[in-house]
Amino acid sequence: MPLRMSTLFLRTLRDDPAEAEVASHKLLVRAGYIRRAAPGIYTWLPLGLKVLAKVEAIVREEMDAIGAQEVRFPALLPREPYEATGRWDEYGDGLFRLQDRKGGDYLLAPTHEEMFTLLVKDLYSSYKDLPAYLYQIQTKYRDEARPRAGLLRGREFVMKDSYSFDVDDAGLERAYEAHRGAYLRIFERLGLEVVPVQATSGAMGGSRSEEFLHPTPVGEDTFVESDGGYRANVEAVTTVAPAPLDEAAMAALPAPEVKDTPASTTIAALVEVANGLAPREDRAWEPADTLKCVVVTAVVEGGERRQFVVAVPGDREVDLKRLEASVGPALGLVGEPDLEAATAQDLARHPALVRGYIGPGGVGAAGGTPVLGAEGSVSGLPLLVDPRVAPGTVWITGANEDQRHVFGLVAGRDFTWDAVVEATAVREGDEAPDGSGPLRTRRGMEMGHIFQLGRKYAEALDLKVLDENGKQVVVTMGSYGIGVTRAVAAIAERHHDDRGLVWPRAVAPADVHVVVAAKGEEALAAAEALAGELEAQGLSVLVDDRPKVSPGVKFKDAELIGVPTAVVVGRGLADGELELKDRVTGESRAVAVDAAAGEVLALVRP
Amino acid sequence: MPLRMSTLFLRTLRDDPAEAEVASHKLLVRAGYIRRAAPGIYTWLPLGLKVLAKVEAIVREEMDAIGAQEVRFPALLPREPYEATGRWDEYGDGLFRLQDRKGGDYLLAPTHEEMFTLLVKDLYSSYKDLPAYLYQIQTKYRDEARPRAGLLRGREFVMKDSYSFDVDDAGLERAYEAHRGAYLRIFERLGLEVVPVQATSGAMGGSRSEEFLHPTPVGEDTFVESDGGYRANVEAVTTVAPAPLDEAAMAALPAPEVKDTPASTTIAALVEVANGLAPREDRAWEPADTLKCVVVTAVVEGGERRQFVVAVPGDREVDLKRLEASVGPALGLVGEPDLEAATAQDLARHPALVRGYIGPGGVGAAGGTPVLGAEGSVSGLPLLVDPRVAPGTVWITGANEDQRHVFGLVAGRDFTWDAVVEATAVREGDEAPDGSGPLRTRRGMEMGHIFQLGRKYAEALDLKVLDENGKQVVVTMGSYGIGVTRAVAAIAERHHDDRGLVWPRAVAPADVHVVVAAKGEEALAAAEALAGELEAQGLSVLVDDRPKVSPGVKFKDAELIGVPTAVVVGRGLADGELELKDRVTGESRAVAVDAAAGEVLALVRP
Repeated sequence: MPLRMSTLFLRTLRDDPAEAEVASHKLLVRAGYIRRAAPGIYTWLPLGLKVLAKVEAIVREEMDAIGAQEVRFPALLPREPYEATGRWDEYGDGLFRLQDRKGGDYLLAPTHEEMFTLLVKDLYSSYKDLPAYLYQIQTKYRDEARPRAGLLRGREFVMKDSYSFDVDDAGLERAYEAHRGAYLRIFERLGLEVVPVQATSGAMGGSRSEEFLHPTPVGEDTFVESDGGYRANVEAVTTVAPAPLDEAAMAALPAPEVKDTPASTTIAALVEVANGLAPREDRAWEPADTLKCVVVTAVVEGGERRQFVVAVPGDREVDLKRLEASVGPALGLVGEPDLEAATAQDLARHPALVRGYIGPGGVGAAGGTPVLGAEGSVSGLPLLVDPRVAPGTVWITGANEDQRHVFGLVAGRDFTWDAVVEATAVREGDEAPDGSGPLRTRRGMEMGHIFQLGRKYAEALDLKVLDENGKQVVVTMGSYGIGVTRAVAAIAERHHDDRGLVWPRAVAPADVHVVVAAKGEEALAAAEALAGELEAQGLSVLVDDRPKVSPGVKFKDAELIGVPTAVVVGRGLADGELELKDRVTGESRAVAVDAAAGEVLALVRP
Repeated sequence: MPLRMSTLFLRTLRDDPAEAEVASHKLLVRAGYIRRAAPGIYTWLPLGLKVLAKVEAIVREEMDAIGAQEVRFPALLPREPYEATGRWDEYGDGLFRLQDRKGGDYLLAPTHEEMFTLLVKDLYSSYKDLPAYLYQIQTKYRDEARPRAGLLRGREFVMKDSYSFDVDDAGLERAYEAHRGAYLRIFERLGLEVVPVQATSGAMGGSRSEEFLHPTPVGEDTFVESDGGYRANVEAVTTVAPAPLDEAAMAALPAPEVKDTPASTTIAALVEVANGLAPREDRAWEPADTLKCVVVTAVVEGGERRQFVVAVPGDREVDLKRLEASVGPALGLVGEPDLEAATAQDLARHPALVRGYIGPGGVGAAGGTPVLGAEGSVSGLPLLVDPRVAPGTVWITGANEDQRHVFGLVAGRDFTWDAVVEATAVREGDEAPDGSGPLRTRRGMEMGHIFQLGRKYAEALDLKVLDENGKQVVVTMGSYGIGVTRAVAAIAERHHDDRGLVWPRAVAPADVHVVVAAKGEEALAAAEALAGELEAQGLSVLVDDRPKVSPGVKFKDAELIGVPTAVVVGRGLADGELELKDRVTGESRAVAVDAAAGEVLALVRP
């Protein structure tokens, strides 16, 4: 049966919803595909549900094709398995937690590694049972701090998540490659270019992982690529550290010297003062010769604000998102902390810090005692350094006295640190870590993520099988996700123009939109006849049969809704002609009434 | 592609799960359809998901056929709309409530009246937009006090819920009838007999409502039917009250008299004592002549135990479930309270009550002061009465003194009450309220429920449209539910035998089960050839191609899994024969290899 707009539960809107920032959000709401129920939580209207079902079907087909089997887990889950793997805590505020009437702790699952692991443990016991690839298309929950951009960052959303179980690393590698291939096919069918990039693994744990990013200016992720083929999320880019000097070579370097550097609280001012005060023979002092000590606040659970210092070359900016991805272990925190630049109030809690002149210490006024460092220092603040601050590198940095800096401070000789972290922003033109050329940076939207989890979950939950020799071995796992509702938004973001949505055929809510633009029974009958013929061929048809709605409004709505092909039943009908319209190009041409169904079929199934 | 048991994620179990009580639960777990994740929360394994999808498809087709349109609402919803209709509180402990990271109150929706109402309000504004029938197939949550029987009473479950919106009562009546018809067709296609019975509307509110009960001894509901066509859930049965006497007629009745009735704490003992002590001329005293005052405890929110008294004829038992369904308004409580028989501790809190001799009071030792009644009585306990305790009826009841009863106490003259409630158990043979004959009682399982909500939700959420005269009118609504996951369990409960499940064809996980029972490549090749031929015809095939599994185990598993038709590739293959087996009858017959596909097709698509 065709969908008839005279009865379809749909009202197109002229105005963008107040809270919408990106085109996909505006258009999906205005064209009647989705509707907001709460922040980051959406209702699917009839047309939206049809697109969602088509996206799901494509994902399902490609997962089935690699031998993955579909199951479905609950969304409401008990605390215990997540407690066993540590994720009950690691997820922090991002997890919706609740209690049942008996006071038992539950969560709304953001992802299901634990449950799949326990299920396989329940059913399987031998290497002969493996490999097993399992997946589900299911509703997930994350309590985002800032839900935004409609379906792009929601709190209730649909994901396809799959999990592979293998007896050895070679098996995991095969599972990973199978999923990688399936993902590339899925996104191609969905009409979404994606770039697979190296990624960090965050709360998931595990080793190798890649994100499938769809390049778009509205993407929340930044990734880099080199001509030589290096591609990584900016959070996963590793900094190339200079070769460290050995102790003897460090000892042979000149001793550090504290100098008066008036009014030099910025890097630029400091470089200028240094070049005037103590010019170097071979080349001028540059920002890269200075060591910038930045105080950062980690907001940990319960709202406690904990400060630490990160030291980076003066020509580099601290990138808090990159730092968040790597700083957890260095600070002894589970999960990723929320980082902020330290406020004046934060700084006031540490009187040992002289604002504008902070340095590691160990020389100058403080004598031999370090000023920074988690243990045995004056401030007690952990000191983390960028990989460029390698043993033997020489720096100009704050002397922890007003208007004074120390010159010739040698890392690893004159000061030490608590940990090395990736803290600086990656810049266009930086060298790729694999030497494959300078990096370009782009924005992208994460459409999928694949992980080699390895044995973390299987160990925590004791999933073992007997191997060929009858020995118990821990299973190795992979985890693979695609944001299904997010994909709908990404497709809308990629395929639209200023008049509305322009769906790729594979996911359009209907194959063809028949617009009754002439008055009278005859036009309506012709439209119904064509729709009937097309539906009989297995096509899905949307008919705009609304009485008392002008052709102009109908055309506008058709463009907004974005079915790729339209057939207009207009004035030409008297001459036995209909109009065939292409939504992408906007072009239209006359076709004979009798030939219309054939022409549409040729377009939809070329 | 056929499902191959060599790789299918399935392990059949020999033993019933420890917590399983009913056959469907045992068999669905043992045959590898579902797996428990938490109390009342289940995971769907591959075979189970296939059955679930078939049930969903049937529901979807029949809903679409009556012009209902599918949408999908979130499960996680904000408190406000449910606050506006009062259901945030009414649902009591049955609602999963939680807070987001900002402290906002949310719930996991047990049903979506509020959200549908708001959505229609958002999009529609005129009588021309109506009627609208909307539905979803979606995951719902209820924090059941006693989740049990597997999928039959779960805490996370899938429901089809639909809602109708009409401008007038005639429209609602049409919507209700359309749903009623669709429901009967759905249950017929699912292979589930159902009896539509009158029902109470509980937390939903509204007027006319019917439940679709599937008669089964494991059902949680009891319903009654008469030869004359009366059918009702026992909770909805109304008691026929005798005609009340007017004041003059009551005044003319003899005055009550208190008598010593030693050792008469039971109704039987009291009747015996009464017949000895004060025999009646026309006929002997019977239990129905005595008034039994039963103390009941309502456990209200926060765990407070509140007592009240319900007075019923001595030949009748109090039915706490029927009382729960009707007592809320009488006690001034929102929702249905949990009722229990009062404990000794509960009774000890009311020293005015003389155990075994409780009565309304107003005569005897207490003089003119009533002993029972919410206001002005000695105990302060609310007194609720069965409809049979009509004004002018005469009773023997407790005198509130040890070993004494009062005779000839006239209801409405000598004592009054706070409310009339349906409190007594309905008995086999009781007269139907509509006079259509004596009632029979049966157990049933609620498969669906349809409600004429009327204007309750539309009024609370201000859903109005302009009528033909340009006047704002409140929309009238219906609400209609089917338990989809519960239907899977009900079908399993209805269609099984001592060897396993016996699925109706419409919902079987596969159309045919091909069992490779002979050894060697040839048998496997024959099975694959047949499977390929059947799949090419659009049938779904499960092939038991497991190597090193004996034919005996394969047959047992096939019977447990319950695909309606099996083809065995066995020793007969050498003679060009396969075996065609019927799961229901257990009969089998030889068919030529070449004819097998045709025979199977004829069975599956007769």
